[in-house]
Order: sequence, then C-alpha cells, then structure tokens
Amino acid sequence: MKLTACSSVLLLTFSFCHGGNIFVFPAEGSHWINMDILLQALHSRGHNITILRSTRSWYIKANASYYNALSMPVQKSIDEKFITNLMKAGVQFVLGTTPWISSISILTKMMDIITYLHSAVCELVSAVLDDAALMKTLEDSKFDLVLSDPCWGGGVILAKYMKLPLVYYVRWQIGEDAHFGMAPSPLSYIPVTGSGFTDRMTFLQRVKNMILYLLTYIQNDVSGRLYQPTCAKYLGPDVDFNQIKTDADIWLMRTDFVFDYPRPTMPNVVYIGGFQCKPAKPLPEHLEEFVQSSGEHGVIIMPMGTFVSELPDDMANGIAAALAKLPQKVIWRYKGKRPSTLGNNTLVVDWMPQNDLLGHPKIKLFVAHGGTNGVQEAIYHGVPVVGLPMYFDQYDNLLRLQERGGAKIVSITTVDKDDNFLKAIQEVLTEPSYRENMQRLSRLHRDQPVKPMDKALFWIEFVMRHKGAAHLKAQSYNMSWFSYHSVDVVLFLTAAVLLVFLTSLVFIRCLFRALCKRKVKRE
Amino acid sequence: MKLTACSSVLLLTFSFCHGGNIFVFPAEGSHWINMDILLQALHSRGHNITILRSTRSWYIKANASYYNALSMPVQKSIDEKFITNLMKAGVQFVLGTTPWISSISILTKMMDIITYLHSAVCELVSAVLDDAALMKTLEDSKFDLVLSDPCWGGGVILAKYMKLPLVYYVRWQIGEDAHFGMAPSPLSYIPVTGSGFTDRMTFLQRVKNMILYLLTYIQNDVSGRLYQPTCAKYLGPDVDFNQIKTDADIWLMRTDFVFDYPRPTMPNVVYIGGFQCKPAKPLPEHLEEFVQSSGEHGVIIMPMGTFVSELPDDMANGIAAALAKLPQKVIWRYKGKRPSTLGNNTLVVDWMPQNDLLGHPKIKLFVAHGGTNGVQEAIYHGVPVVGLPMYFDQYDNLLRLQERGGAKIVSITTVDKDDNFLKAIQEVLTEPSYRENMQRLSRLHRDQPVKPMDKALFWIEFVMRHKGAAHLKAQSYNMSWFSYHSVDVVLFLTAAVLLVFLTSLVFIRCLFRALCKRKVKRE
Repeated sequence: MKLTACSSVLLLTFSFCHGGNIFVFPAEGSHWINMDILLQALHSRGHNITILRSTRSWYIKANASYYNALSMPVQKSIDEKFITNLMKAGVQFVLGTTPWISSISILTKMMDIITYLHSAVCELVSAVLDDAALMKTLEDSKFDLVLSDPCWGGGVILAKYMKLPLVYYVRWQIGEDAHFGMAPSPLSYIPVTGSGFTDRMTFLQRVKNMILYLLTYIQNDVSGRLYQPTCAKYLGPDVDFNQIKTDADIWLMRTDFVFDYPRPTMPNVVYIGGFQCKPAKPLPEHLEEFVQSSGEHGVIIMPMGTFVSELPDDMANGIAAALAKLPQKVIWRYKGKRPSTLGNNTLVVDWMPQNDLLGHPKIKLFVAHGGTNGVQEAIYHGVPVVGLPMYFDQYDNLLRLQERGGAKIVSITTVDKDDNFLKAIQEVLTEPSYRENMQRLSRLHRDQPVKPMDKALFWIEFVMRHKGAAHLKAQSYNMSWFSYHSVDVVLFLTAAVLLVFLTSLVFIRCLFRALCKRKVKRE
Repeated sequence: MKLTACSSVLLLTFSFCHGGNIFVFPAEGSHWINMDILLQALHSRGHNITILRSTRSWYIKANASYYNALSMPVQKSIDEKFITNLMKAGVQFVLGTTPWISSISILTKMMDIITYLHSAVCELVSAVLDDAALMKTLEDSKFDLVLSDPCWGGGVILAKYMKLPLVYYVRWQIGEDAHFGMAPSPLSYIPVTGSGFTDRMTFLQRVKNMILYLLTYIQNDVSGRLYQPTCAKYLGPDVDFNQIKTDADIWLMRTDFVFDYPRPTMPNVVYIGGFQCKPAKPLPEHLEEFVQSSGEHGVIIMPMGTFVSELPDDMANGIAAALAKLPQKVIWRYKGKRPSTLGNNTLVVDWMPQNDLLGHPKIKLFVAHGGTNGVQEAIYHGVPVVGLPMYFDQYDNLLRLQERGGAKIVSITTVDKDDNFLKAIQEVLTEPSYRENMQRLSRLHRDQPVKPMDKALFWIEFVMRHKGAAHLKAQSYNMSWFSYHSVDVVLFLTAAVLLVFLTSLVFIRCLFRALCKRKVKRE
C-alpha cells in the first residue's frame, strides 16, 4: 500500500459572486478577532458588508476599508474598561486570591454583569429599530442575509424583523455550547462545557454532567428571557425568543471533530474550525533574529490570550523563574510589571504574530491559555502544548488536546509551586509522543475535501443564491418541548396501556364473580 | 443583488492515489446496480477491488474488468428465481389480488424468506472464514478496508475478523433506515419508513409513528440476532452483533437533504445521494428518432423498477389505455404480455437508458415506481413525476417529492379505475408548478461544494490514508442502551431526590413528635 506517500491536494474554486449585501451583528473580544478575518474574505469576494456597533465599542473599529460601520450611540456599552475590570475580578476569583465572602459577591456581580451585557445588546437593537429613517435606509439597502454571532441575541431579532435569512457564526449561543441548543445531545457521552469531563465518563461523572446540564439549561433559559421584552415589542407578543433563537439557516460552527468530541449534529451545521489558520508568513526581522539565536534548542511561545494582561507579582516571578531555567528561548506576551526573575532567554512582548510563530520550524512548544483560536492554530501547525487554562471553556479545550496526547495541563493556581510548570514544559519537550500526536491531529485537520474558510464562504453565498436554506432546517424548530420529546405521545400510550390493563382486570373480576355466583347457586 | 445570475462552479481535484486494496461485501438487486458505479469509479482511481459473491449470485457477475470476484459455492443463495418468486408474491399481496387468508400466509412466508436471506449471508461468511487457505490469501492481500452494504450483516463480521476499517455504503441497515441505528432520531418529526408520514405529523400520526418504530425496532433486533451465532463463533462469545453492526468508520449515505427530511446526523456520515447521476449522453439512434417524433408534446418515460416485471392483464390494459389517450409519446419498460389496448404513441421496451432519457430536453414527465435511484435521477434532472409506488420505501420516497410539489402519487390498486392515472398525468403536465419545483430541487441538489461521487471517493481514500476514521466515531457505539439513554443516571437522581424527601419527612415527623411529647409532659 503506497497511500501514505500521497496526501490529498484539493483545489476548490467557485465563481466570483458580485454584489452580495451582508448585514453583520458581531460580538466583541476574541469572537470579533476571527469574525473579522471572515469579513475580510467576504469583502475580497465582492460582497458589501455593513456591521452594527455601538459608538463605545471596544474591539470593533468605526472605520475599516472592508466594511461600513453603523455606529449607534447607546447608554450601556461593552467597552474596554468594562471588560478589563470584569476580567481582573475573574482572574482574582480563579486564582483564589479573594476571600470566600468576596468570592460570593464576585459571583453575584458576574451575574449582574451578564444581565447588563445582554440588556446593552437589547438597547442597541432598539436603537436601530426605533430609528425610522435608519430602518428606511436599511430596507433600501436590500440585504441578502444577516450574519450574527449568537452569543448575543440581537442578530436573530434583527433578522426576523427585516425578514432576512440568518447565518450564525457560532461557538456559543447565549452562554451555552451552541450544539446543545440545536442538536440532540445525549448527556451520556457529551460533556457539558465547564464539567472538565471527556466523552468517556464514569457513572458518577455522568450524574454530575446531568446536574450541570440542568443548571446550564436554567441559566440559558433565564438569559434568553432577558431578550423577551425586545423580542415581543418588535416581533409580536406571541413570539418566544427562546424558540426563535435557534432558527438560523446555516450555523458556521467554529470547531471540528479533530478538536472536539464527535457528537450528533444537524444538516445545516457547517464545521469551519480552524478557518482562520493559514501557512506562516516570514517573521519581522528582529523576531526572526531572536528565533534563530535559539540554535538547536528552539523556541517556546507564550501568548496569554485577550483577557489576561496581569498576574499577581509572585506568580509572574514564579513563571519567569521557571522559564529562565530552560535552554530554549521564550517569547512571552505579557503586559504586567516586568518580573524580577526574568531570564536572558525570555523576550517579553506586547503582541506577537502567533500564527507565523507557530508555523516556524524552530518552534518547539506553545504555552497556551486554551482559547479556541489558539488551540485550533496549535492543531493546524502541529505544535505540542502546555496548557495554563484560566476560565470559560479554556480547561475543556485543552483537555481535548491532553486526552489525545498532544498537551499537558498545569493548574494556574499551582503554576509557581514545586516546579510544576518547569516539569510540564520539560516533559512535553523531551517526550516525542506529544509532538507526534499534534502532528497527527494536524494531518487529520488538513485532510478535508474543502478548506474550512472555503466552506464558510460557500455556504454564506449558498444562502444568498437560494434566499435561505429552508430545506436543511429540521422541523424541531417549530415544536413545543413536550411534542419534540414525545411527552404527550408517551403519556397517551401509557394511559392506553393502563386502560386496557384495568379494563381487562375489571372484566376478569366480573367473570370470576359471575362464575363464583353460579358455583354458589349450584351448591 | 446580481447573485441569481451566477451559479457556483466547483472544480475538485485530488491527487491520484495508487494501489489501495478494497474488499467489498455487496448486496444484490438495485443496491448492487449503483454500488457497481462506485466500484468503477474506485477502479479508475487505481484501486484494486475484490468482491465476495456466491456462485449463484443474481446481479453480481463473476467476471468484470474492474474487480476480482471471489465466488463461493454455497447451499443457500439469493438467486434470480428466488427473488422473482418473492417479488411476484409481493405484487399480488400489494394489489390485493390474494384473499386475506392467503395474505396471512404470504406475510408468514415473507418473514421466513427474510430469515432465509440472512442465513444465506451467514453461510457465505462462514464459507470464507472456514477456508484457511483462502483466509491466508486474503491476509496476504493486505486490504486497506472493507466496503459493505449493511442491509446484510456479513460485511461488519468480516471487517472485524480481519481487523480492517469499515466503510458502509448505505441506505438501509438490516431492514431499518440506517439513520435510526446510528443517530438520535426524535420520533416527533422523523417518520418511520413505511409510515407514509412527513416530518409534520399530527398527534395521532405521532402516536402511530411511535408504535411503528417499536415494531420496527423489535423486527430489527430479531433480524440482527440471526447473525449472533456467526458473530459469536468467529469474533468471540462476548461480542454482540447488534452492538457492532453500527461500528463503521464512515457511512456513505445514499440520500441527501434535498430529497429526505432534515434530521440529526453524525460526523462520520457522508451524504452522497445522487452520486450516480450524471449529465445525459446522446440516445441510441432509434430512441432519439422516437423522442424527436413527439414534436412539441414531448415524451413520458415509465421504467418500472427492478422487481415489477409483470402486472395483472386488466391492470396493464388499463395503464396502456390511459397512455394511449395522451398526445405525448411514451416509453414504457415492461416485460409482461403485450397489453391489447396499447396505443401507437407507446413504445414498449425491455430496457431504457433512464439517466440519458431524463436529461433529454424532450422529456416532460417521469412515471416512477419510487425506488431511490429513480427519485434521485428525477431530482438531478429536474423532471416532474407521477408516482406508482408498490412496496418497500417507494411510497415514502415519492411522498417526499409530492410534498415539495414535484410529484403526484397514484395508488397502484386504483391505477386502472376512474381515469385516475390519466388525470394525474394531465395535471402534472399542465400545471407548471410541478416542473418548477423539480427544477428548484435540481438546483439545490447540484449546488454543493463537493460533488457526491467526489465525496464518496475522498472519504474512502481518507480511511485508507488514516487507517480508519476513529476521530469521527462517537462513543455511543461503546455504550449499553441504559447508559446511552442515561437510564441509570435518571434512576439514581430520582432515588436521591426521593431519599432526601423521605429523610426530611422522617426528620420532621420525629421533630414534631418530640415537640408534642414535651408539650404533653409540660401539661
């Protein structure tokens, strides 16, 4: 068998489609970073893009060559200061540096903040829909579809109001793994995000998984209800937001099954995980020089995500001291106070070209915080990982790599103790299986009939060509939960069986009595 | 928006992979007809193909330029005579020409025949596995995978025995819609095949659907058990056939969601519906002449499937008389006695190039019996349909077209009464919506990022390159039914809640008693 020598080389070209008009309802932070890449690709295929942002928007700039921004002045806003304070509190909470009484107050505060964020989105939606002149302009623009990140609920309300097809660009849907909202999800092998479980659970893990699911379900139901007044006001009092929120034509899902566990899915879900990954470009001169100076030992990179800008001093010192002991060179993105223990081998930077570094042959290891973007890039380039997860889905993301033998997770709370961090780095560097497994995942990820970005573009244009994708939307979206789960049918059948059973019982009893009577009479 | 003018033109090329070795366990009849097309495509990509057949095989020839046949002499066999007799009995049963007492005997006979068919497959499997010299040769052949049609259970046993990856080429799995065996299937909107329901069911239809499902489930479980002795003998006494039968690496599913209702699916299911369809080739001269002679009225074709070769005389006469009244020309594939009422406009043939005729611009209507192949070709070429379903999935297949406005179904039992057939044909010919809807389905079907045949080839070669597709197989395959459905977890949680409730009750009772006692003492 000579197949190992030949990889599949795919050329996908589809004809240029001019003049599509796309209305975008984006989300902030890391969600925006890679949606931005998709928007640039759409623009380069000749589509006009209009995005909705608040004037106080954090990541989403008012001016860009490839989109028109519709900037709405609003009271509530998700700006940089707001998010930074939120994240600082979060880091303190995770690191356990707050006393437990404060922890409870932080948790309560977090819930308030989530409520605030969703109501900020509702305000933005109302600002648009209440502006008659603006709505007239939007109608005249003849949009082909709404592209929205459903971690906010604004996109679907606008799409339904404007009667436009809806494409979701999605990983989360209002706080829950989007899959749970849209495809049957047997809890026996699908771990709830945040559970820290894999797809092979023990009995007790399955019990915990179900309890966690019920809690998440309630939380999402409550979050969804925050949109109900806006939904009822503009779409009609009978429209239930929690029902319409899953009613999209296409879901561009930012994972795939090289990264995530295989699970049931739906025909209108398109897996575009790693769509933002691309071959490495040459590094800036000073970085290339630094990387080359590492010699045979190579380089470790440690970008620590969008949100973690500062760590407590002693923790940063512990990390820096561990890195200083390595023969490798290290590039560390860190905006906090310069650690006193920093070694000569470590370059602290404000920003790094992560994808280009990961694709560089000198890179030996990626210290990742576990965001989806970084994990996908590690898979694409086949670089082994030491994971330092903080919150959200970060632990679960890294767990998927660790379980497949490509990563080792270190707890952030003990990263500066007992050489934990140093030992983990040394293990991943010296044990060849880590790199081999990541290279295997990379081969699997790259071996697809259509590249993820091409899939995304194809299906967005498909929705334009056919004015939606109704034929891919299951009827489940139109059903009440008790019909969907056949609760009424099961009750009916149980009642029918009981009725037959009881009637038979009564009949037999009567028969028996009649027989007894006859016997008595005879006697 | 100028998008309507541009259709997507896709070029998919992947590098030629030499030397793959494929072991095929096929099925007979119409299943073989289109698997044969896939095998030719695999051969043309340089793969060696070995197929297993019985020496008394009906459709599968012992000699072909593109495969090596491994012909095993067996006692039981699914030969032409066997199938023809089976189908004749079936037609009589469907047409109601047998008295009801005989109907029961036919039903019993059918069950016996199904048992016989599965045991014939088991005999074939044993014949191979008991032949040590043959097994040595097979081992030396170093196969890359087993390709099997799981409407018989032999392929999976052979694949597991030879420890080879398994690719299913599938529409049915041992009598049941393959989806039901492999993906979660909410009965609230997924009609059981044979139910005659759509994905929008009334309450009573949902009740019937659940009862039908339970019956089908029992039937499939029983059919699966027929393989258990063979499975236990060769794979070990602990191996449960009904568990391993769904354990394939890739399922090449011969439907898509233009044809079938959207429903949950799994990551290792690849939809290749219509993979056998291709642009029409020129017709043989005499047929082209006949077709052209139809003038502006055009042509109707009526191929009636693999199994229906003869109809009762009066029914054939009724059909012929109806066709004779049409201004169109008709091409009718019919092997029975020439009907006395046959019109001059009707050409009776033994065989017709169905795909080439469907793609001919003169074709106005397709009278179809509802086999999957024909329905897919009707969609591909966008030709409206009058349906004359007989048995199996034929009514359900045609129902999917009828519901989308592309077909009209006529009951075969009343086809020769009240001009039913004639009226249906005239309606479909004169009402433009039928053709428009089929053309719409055709556009949707053709608008895919990868052609169905290319998808099939890609994923078969993917399994070769990666020695399986383990990363796409969900853990559900490894679970018992009560774990999979979380029955144990639900019982445990219910017990826990009850325990807490009862303990509280006992505690409150004790407390109450203690309080009462104290009160009594005081008094």
